[in-house]
Amino acid sequence: MSNTETVDVSSLTQLCVDAFRHAGLSQENAQISSRILIEADMMGFNTHGVVRVPEYTDRLRRGGVNPSAAIDVDRRAPSLAVVDGDNGLGTVVGSKALEAALGMVTETGIAYVGCKNSNHFGALAPYALHACNAGYLLLGGTNASTTMAPWGGKEARIGNNPLCIAAPCADGAHFILDMAMSVAARGKIRAADKAGSPIPEGWALDSLGDSTTDASEALKGFLLPFGGYKGSGLAMAVDILAGVLNGARFLTDVSSWSDAPDAPSGVGHFFVLLDPGKLLGADAFAAAMDRFKDIVLTTPSAQSTGPVVLPGQREQQRRRTAIKDGVEIPRDLLDSIEQLARG
Amino acid sequence: MSNTETVDVSSLTQLCVDAFRHAGLSQENAQISSRILIEADMMGFNTHGVVRVPEYTDRLRRGGVNPSAAIDVDRRAPSLAVVDGDNGLGTVVGSKALEAALGMVTETGIAYVGCKNSNHFGALAPYALHACNAGYLLLGGTNASTTMAPWGGKEARIGNNPLCIAAPCADGAHFILDMAMSVAARGKIRAADKAGSPIPEGWALDSLGDSTTDASEALKGFLLPFGGYKGSGLAMAVDILAGVLNGARFLTDVSSWSDAPDAPSGVGHFFVLLDPGKLLGADAFAAAMDRFKDIVLTTPSAQSTGPVVLPGQREQQRRRTAIKDGVEIPRDLLDSIEQLARG
Repeated sequence: MSNTETVDVSSLTQLCVDAFRHAGLSQENAQISSRILIEADMMGFNTHGVVRVPEYTDRLRRGGVNPSAAIDVDRRAPSLAVVDGDNGLGTVVGSKALEAALGMVTETGIAYVGCKNSNHFGALAPYALHACNAGYLLLGGTNASTTMAPWGGKEARIGNNPLCIAAPCADGAHFILDMAMSVAARGKIRAADKAGSPIPEGWALDSLGDSTTDASEALKGFLLPFGGYKGSGLAMAVDILAGVLNGARFLTDVSSWSDAPDAPSGVGHFFVLLDPGKLLGADAFAAAMDRFKDIVLTTPSAQSTGPVVLPGQREQQRRRTAIKDGVEIPRDLLDSIEQLARG
Repeated sequence: MSNTETVDVSSLTQLCVDAFRHAGLSQENAQISSRILIEADMMGFNTHGVVRVPEYTDRLRRGGVNPSAAIDVDRRAPSLAVVDGDNGLGTVVGSKALEAALGMVTETGIAYVGCKNSNHFGALAPYALHACNAGYLLLGGTNASTTMAPWGGKEARIGNNPLCIAAPCADGAHFILDMAMSVAARGKIRAADKAGSPIPEGWALDSLGDSTTDASEALKGFLLPFGGYKGSGLAMAVDILAGVLNGARFLTDVSSWSDAPDAPSGVGHFFVLLDPGKLLGADAFAAAMDRFKDIVLTTPSAQSTGPVVLPGQREQQRRRTAIKDGVEIPRDLLDSIEQLARG
C-alpha cells in the first residue's frame, strides 16, 4: 500500500486555490500562491511545496499573516523599487515584486527590487523560472528566522538564507542555481532523530558549539553552514541584500513562524534582474549559453562524484515529467489539503 | 635571520610603479596597478599582492598583455556598461570599469559593468573597499583559467571564479566577503607537495576523478569546489555574470597565463553597485549595518570554531596595521621587484 498519491497539476491547483480562498485570500492571490508552491513540488523541492498549505492557511486564519494585505510598490528610481508587503503571504509579495522588477528591466535593462514586511515565500526556483522564461537573468534571495550560528559562534543568529542565480537558455532548460547555506536541511536531522540514526559529522553543532553526530543534540544546537566561513558569510550577505537594504527585519529580528505563529515575521527578499539583450545581445547570449552548457555537460564523469549535471537540470526534468504525469503527494497531506479546500 | 623584510607602503608603491613603468605602463596605470596589488598585501591576500609584479611585468614585456591598451567603456543604458579591455592589464581594466560603475550608480542608484578582453585583475577586496568607501554595496566577480572540474566531473573545465559581496559601514570597517570557490587554494597543495606532506581529504581529486590525499597526485588532478555542487554551481554562476553576459571568454576558452604567457587570456569581470541612499536611506542603512555587525559580533563563541568575526574584519584590521607599520615581503620577492624597478 502506497503512502503517496499522484495528482495532476490542475486538480492540485484547484484544491490549493480553494484552501487559500477559504483562508481569506483573493482568487488572484490564491492562484499566485498555489502556482509558486506547486512549481516547487514539480521541481522536487517538496519541503517548499504544497506541504506548506496547512501552515500558510493556519497563519492566514490566525491573523499572523494578513490575507488582504495592501502591497505597495514604491519605485525609488527607474531601476529600483522597495515593496512593502503589509505582512501579506510571501508568495504574493514575492510575485508582485518580481512583476515590478520585470516591468523595470524591460525598460532599463536592470532592476533591483527589495521586499519588507513579508513572510515565507516558498522556494526561489519558481521565481527564477518565471524570470528566465521572460528572457532575464535573476539573482535573488530571502532571509529567514535564525537556524544557524555565524561561523565561530554557538547561538543561532542567522537564517539559512537561500541565494539563487539563474540565466535563461534558448531551449527552455535554464541555468537555475538555488541553494540554502547549511550543509544539510533541518528536516533531514529531524528525520534522523525520529529514526534514531546518527547524522554525519559536519552537519550540526550541539548547544555548546561542539561538533555532534547525535541528531537529538543537533536539534538542540545549530545547523552548520556549508564551507564554514564561506557559507556563513554568504548567509550574511543575503541578509544584507534581502533585509538590511530595504528596511526589512534581519538576523535575530526576524520572527519565527513556529515560535510565534500569530506575529508578523518581517521577512525580506530581493531580486536583481539583468537583460542580456542590452549587454551581449539576446541571440549571442543564447548561443553562448548553449556553448556553456555543452562544455559543462561533456565533462568526463568522475568515479566518486559523477555524473556532471547543470544547476537546475534535474529539477526542470522533474518538472517536465510532472506536467505530463502529475505530482506525487503524501496521502495524509493530500487529506489535509482536501479538508482545507472544503472549508 | 629573517626571510622577509617590512617595507612601508609608499616605498613599496614607488618600487612597483617603477617596475610597471619599465614594463611599458603609463604613470597613471602603473599607479592604479600598484595600488590594487599593495592593497591586497595590506589585507593579507599575499597570493594576489606584489608577488604578481614579476608575472604581470613579464607578460607586459612579452606582449601577452597590452601595456598601451585602449580601454573602451560602452555605455549600453543609464545603468549598464560593457568595458572592452583591449587585452590590457586586469588591474587597469577592472579599475576603469569600477570607475564607470561608480559614475552610473551615483546617477541611477544601480549599475552593472561587465569587462571583456581583460586579464588577471588581482583580488576583489581592493575594488570592494573602494566602492564601500564611496558608500555603495558591491557584488563582483571574475572568471579565470580552469582549475576545477564541475562537480561530478574529472576534467578541469571551470575556474576557481571568486565572488565578492560587500556593504559599506559608517565606521569604515566594511562588510567584505571575498571568496574563491575551491576548498583550498592550489598554492597550498603546491606547498604540501614541496614539503612532501599529505593534504587533507576533500581538497582535491586525482586525474581519474578519485579523492586523494597525495599532493603530487592532486596537482595532476583538480581542485574540489567548496560545498560540492554548491561551490561548483557558484563558480559557473560567476562565469555567466563575468564572462558570458558581456562577451568575454568563459570556461575552457579562458587561456591560462602559465600555459600560454604570450596569448591574451580573455578574462571577464563584473561589478554590480547599489546605492543604499536610494533604498533604505544612507543614515538608516548605516544604523542598520551597525546593528547587524553588533548582533553578529556578540554571538557567544563556540569551542571548536570560534571566535566570531565578520567577513573582511581581519583583513581590514591588517590593513590598518600595514598603513602604520608597512607590509612584510619575502626578501627574494623584494629583490626581484627592486631589480624590475631599476629596469
